[in-house]
Amino acid sequence: MADPRLVEHAKFIVHKSTRVKKNDNLVIHIDDDGMDLAVEIYKAASELGAHPIITAAPSEALRAQLAKAPKDTLTSTPQHMLSLISNCDVYIGVRSDSNIRALASVEPKSLAMYSKGQHPINEARLTKRWCLTQYPNGAYAQEAGMSLSEYQDFVYGAILLDVDEQHNRMEKLADLMKSADKVRLTGNRTDLEFSIKGRTPVISDPVHNVPSGEVFTAPLDTSANGEVYFDLPAIRLGREVKGVNLEFRDGKVVDVSAEQNEDFLREQLNIDEGAKRLGEFGVGMNLKINRFTKNILFDEKIAGTIHLAMGRAYKENGGTNESILHWDFIKNMREGAIKMDGKTIQSMGRFHWDS
Amino acid sequence: MADPRLVEHAKFIVHKSTRVKKNDNLVIHIDDDGMDLAVEIYKAASELGAHPIITAAPSEALRAQLAKAPKDTLTSTPQHMLSLISNCDVYIGVRSDSNIRALASVEPKSLAMYSKGQHPINEARLTKRWCLTQYPNGAYAQEAGMSLSEYQDFVYGAILLDVDEQHNRMEKLADLMKSADKVRLTGNRTDLEFSIKGRTPVISDPVHNVPSGEVFTAPLDTSANGEVYFDLPAIRLGREVKGVNLEFRDGKVVDVSAEQNEDFLREQLNIDEGAKRLGEFGVGMNLKINRFTKNILFDEKIAGTIHLAMGRAYKENGGTNESILHWDFIKNMREGAIKMDGKTIQSMGRFHWDS
Repeated sequence: MADPRLVEHAKFIVHKSTRVKKNDNLVIHIDDDGMDLAVEIYKAASELGAHPIITAAPSEALRAQLAKAPKDTLTSTPQHMLSLISNCDVYIGVRSDSNIRALASVEPKSLAMYSKGQHPINEARLTKRWCLTQYPNGAYAQEAGMSLSEYQDFVYGAILLDVDEQHNRMEKLADLMKSADKVRLTGNRTDLEFSIKGRTPVISDPVHNVPSGEVFTAPLDTSANGEVYFDLPAIRLGREVKGVNLEFRDGKVVDVSAEQNEDFLREQLNIDEGAKRLGEFGVGMNLKINRFTKNILFDEKIAGTIHLAMGRAYKENGGTNESILHWDFIKNMREGAIKMDGKTIQSMGRFHWDS
Repeated sequence: MADPRLVEHAKFIVHKSTRVKKNDNLVIHIDDDGMDLAVEIYKAASELGAHPIITAAPSEALRAQLAKAPKDTLTSTPQHMLSLISNCDVYIGVRSDSNIRALASVEPKSLAMYSKGQHPINEARLTKRWCLTQYPNGAYAQEAGMSLSEYQDFVYGAILLDVDEQHNRMEKLADLMKSADKVRLTGNRTDLEFSIKGRTPVISDPVHNVPSGEVFTAPLDTSANGEVYFDLPAIRLGREVKGVNLEFRDGKVVDVSAEQNEDFLREQLNIDEGAKRLGEFGVGMNLKINRFTKNILFDEKIAGTIHLAMGRAYKENGGTNESILHWDFIKNMREGAIKMDGKTIQSMGRFHWDS
């Protein structure tokens, strides 16, 4: 018998997150592992009369493609994949790489070219009822520094929690952000200010992300000034970038440094113009996510952190920045403060309204 | 390191069978197992600049859908899957169910409804460069009555053989069939005659089927008269039908019996009008396939057998019979004979030109 939490997880995604209904065309995508979760999602969805298809992109296959495919084929968009996504109603992505470093030796340029080719497919996905979730496997457990069973407890704990209680806490913050103009982040080599005026803060219930628990908005494109230091590593396409320092002037990054993988960071921020501007400001609000696990789906929701994304902004925030990049950088706020229009709303990771 | 024959198998499919080329859109479909073969196919294809996607239909997922989905959703054709196939250039199907009996308890009616819904997708597939192959796993080994390593030897033996030598033998038979009118099959409760006049015999090199090795054509729709007994079991959608006896009058089955699963047989032959007529007459020609393994991809190519399919005929033969069914029934000819226009061309499983 399967772990009953696996079945609960699948049902949560089908019934609550993506609200699958009769005759929905559904795509369930896995990387390497996670086929047993995909099967449970398939079962729950088809019972409702939906039409699921399972697709997989094993990391060894992707690595070989990025390393050996003729370069000009990487940037082209496969029409069969685009039409699959364009004709679906619901897209469920299950993160489940069996080796998170599988792409480590691939040239950054090939990765950037591949991202360009896949961009229209990713865009099409965002017009659907989509959801990104995590399959707790050995690779992610190892990355998090836990045993598999500890990691399963962690993942299912963050997913199968009281989502109403979490929603109420997030609503409080979103109400403040709605009327705010200037946001200032301070502490640990950081003093950054930007505006969120007129933008729409979004309460992230576990709909597009499972787990969820964050409130996010889009900074105004030309508003960021100052510098920010990200004490937690940022991971993208198998690369770990550590100790990132970004300096902004009128919304644009003018100075970049990193203690590890600085070249890769520069390469990514040079993909296009929008990659040098902020696309998102988010505040972590999931109380069950209480440690850094080197996994953005969880880390950006750690209570007591904020994150800033470089690149594309979300339309739902009223964001305008365009880019093929959307890369989140997380900052631990337990040594800092968040101010809005001069008023401290969080200090040392605790909201001023917390006891 | 993977079994080197797995890599050879993948390369055979990509380079020889489907002749993948730059910018081809490719679909690789597996059932349960076979992901390692899919990955090798993906690697070989993307190295040429093709765009592969891997899809999977795990048998437990399909079983749950057939058992529990609202009936009216089974007969509808999922547009996202249809568009995926319509927009591909190459389709590679890898037979790899981890349990060949997974659908055994599903109602025949549900299976028939599902077949109807999938029919346009299957039709679209046949307009592409397509290939069906076998992943040698435990379930198929068990079904064949062999150990896994024996079965791997059997499968790779049948695939990685001298295809030119095989082609020459098949050409000899095809030349005879090209000018033939009446075919008569006799022996072991069998005396059946039908016409293949004006139809085009096809030499099956390992293009659409890997392995291959058969020569097949389409009988004239109203020409079959007499009776035929199939001494080997016929398997479809997890059901094994044994001891099938069919009696034809003017091309149509007028009497049906089976020693096992006769109801299922009748159900299938009643799917539509075309299901009661012959769609194919084939002669097995692969010398490395020397035993019955309860797997049609192999069994229909056993040297010394013939097979007749009920249902749809192939356009490449100039066949005209239409049906959503295409179900092969195999007959061991080691106790019989094949005559063409009165002349014995094969007796006791040996061609008259063999020494």
